[in-house]
Amino acid sequence: MQLNHIITAIEKELSSYDFGQNPSELYDPIRYILALGGKRLRPALCCMAYELYQQDITPSIKPAIAIEVFHNFTLVHDDIMDEAPLRRGNPTVHTKWNQNIAILSGDVMLVKAYDLLLSVEQQYLAEVIQLFNICAAEVCEGQQYDMNFEEREDVSREEYIEMIRLKTAVLLGYSLESGAVIAGASDADKMHLKQFGQKIGIAFQLQDDILDVYGDQEKFGKQVGGDIISNKKTLLLISALEKAEGKDKTALNEWISATEFVPEEKVAAVTAIYNQLGIRTEAESLMQQYLEEAMNHLNQVDVQDDKKENLKAFAQYLIARDN
Amino acid sequence: MQLNHIITAIEKELSSYDFGQNPSELYDPIRYILALGGKRLRPALCCMAYELYQQDITPSIKPAIAIEVFHNFTLVHDDIMDEAPLRRGNPTVHTKWNQNIAILSGDVMLVKAYDLLLSVEQQYLAEVIQLFNICAAEVCEGQQYDMNFEEREDVSREEYIEMIRLKTAVLLGYSLESGAVIAGASDADKMHLKQFGQKIGIAFQLQDDILDVYGDQEKFGKQVGGDIISNKKTLLLISALEKAEGKDKTALNEWISATEFVPEEKVAAVTAIYNQLGIRTEAESLMQQYLEEAMNHLNQVDVQDDKKENLKAFAQYLIARDN
Repeated sequence: MQLNHIITAIEKELSSYDFGQNPSELYDPIRYILALGGKRLRPALCCMAYELYQQDITPSIKPAIAIEVFHNFTLVHDDIMDEAPLRRGNPTVHTKWNQNIAILSGDVMLVKAYDLLLSVEQQYLAEVIQLFNICAAEVCEGQQYDMNFEEREDVSREEYIEMIRLKTAVLLGYSLESGAVIAGASDADKMHLKQFGQKIGIAFQLQDDILDVYGDQEKFGKQVGGDIISNKKTLLLISALEKAEGKDKTALNEWISATEFVPEEKVAAVTAIYNQLGIRTEAESLMQQYLEEAMNHLNQVDVQDDKKENLKAFAQYLIARDN
Repeated sequence: MQLNHIITAIEKELSSYDFGQNPSELYDPIRYILALGGKRLRPALCCMAYELYQQDITPSIKPAIAIEVFHNFTLVHDDIMDEAPLRRGNPTVHTKWNQNIAILSGDVMLVKAYDLLLSVEQQYLAEVIQLFNICAAEVCEGQQYDMNFEEREDVSREEYIEMIRLKTAVLLGYSLESGAVIAGASDADKMHLKQFGQKIGIAFQLQDDILDVYGDQEKFGKQVGGDIISNKKTLLLISALEKAEGKDKTALNEWISATEFVPEEKVAAVTAIYNQLGIRTEAESLMQQYLEEAMNHLNQVDVQDDKKENLKAFAQYLIARDN
């Protein structure tokens, strides 16, 4: 099935599913956040994995939607924690309504995600929920590490990679793995698809970090250099802090501790240090390495090669994207 | 099995269950809130319902713990929403750590509740989770109605009863119902036990409202009259607002809109109006009515009468309690 047809099926189910009605303060925010869009990558991955083994993707749609609802639940709660005013260019739930409504409607979204998982055939239900629970706890762990890292100056590359694996990549891994489980795939295939998703997820986040500094302003959509301005501990900053010596180190530390500065000057100066230290090349080569590991896992999935075209195209798209 | 032995088994499982370790900011609050105590009424109800049909309560312990973990998740998030500094005499999670940690560790508690439900035999798993989902969404609905009612002056008795049914009673109903489900009870018995729990739950909350005004300060543990001081729309205030006429009505409205007052004077004056209007008698008779409906349902549960002793004693205890 063409990817755009899969996305259409997902959008149709998302907009017709009855999440609940009253009180409206509890259920309106669910429809609101889900209607803000997004690429629906995670549910699409679930359906694509299912389609490696089965003709008709219908049984995978509701479990796929569960993943999208869970993902949006994490966005609603993360936006409270980050005090973010906007999400996809629109007011966040806690801004449009209030914080209590954002907490509570987020909670009920998590419940509704489990409700959607109940559509799974009985023989696969316990496994799908068990894997979902592991994934959901890990996503929370990743968010907590991310918050902890804001207070720390000594985050290592390994810790950073583990944080983005938990916060971002395990959900991509689960999306593929759960699609494979409900299609009756072998244990080996389930493992390879999960690993493919996780490696792609890490590569995806590294690409995000690179685009934040080296993206084309017009295509990127966010302010280029936003991570530099806020001292966000991305792989690039962590590497630069490790590698910088002499006057580069002094300059980098001065920019990090500066409280008053012209944003464009800070972005230009820190980017120059990154270039000096070869940080972009290093980050791109690490991203490439995760991409290769991902493709190795996909190659080992025991289905005909022509069935993997959607997933290969997906991996290429994620890495080639400029926004 | 004696109730105290059931409670002991529940406490043992609660304190030995591995909720997770790292990051500690995520998992320490779970152990903290669960160690603050509480009567463990809900898990005990699950085990008691199970024991109506089965000798050994072991298979009901983990599903019972799931309910206690869920209940404590709602406390952690409700305490944020209510800006409550204390819970059972100790700092609330958002006070001891911070709000973000309280949101996130609450989220992971909800996930762990589902994890505990996975211990259920495969044949009952979908039903147990489906009923849990309905219950969990209803508890959120009740909390949202409770917050909505703070902004409204025209809450009716029926709306109030429905709010406390959702916020408090459905979880007692689910506790009993799920115990019956995993014990293989009939549909009729499941329904009667659920209804017994819900009616007892409403009676329990009405008793709380009455104790807040008419409790013995030493035994009650909280400040007697706290609901009156904060204008909390309990059944007593709603009834009084409906029934008061003439100077009672004027006086009641003056006390409600007063911004500066001596707390003891407000409590004494409003209590005097309640007494004048027969509010206590009305509330107690409504509570009695729900208690009778509860016992009617328990009587219709199709097991030998002597097996129901624990549940009968429990109902008597809830209503006779003075704290």
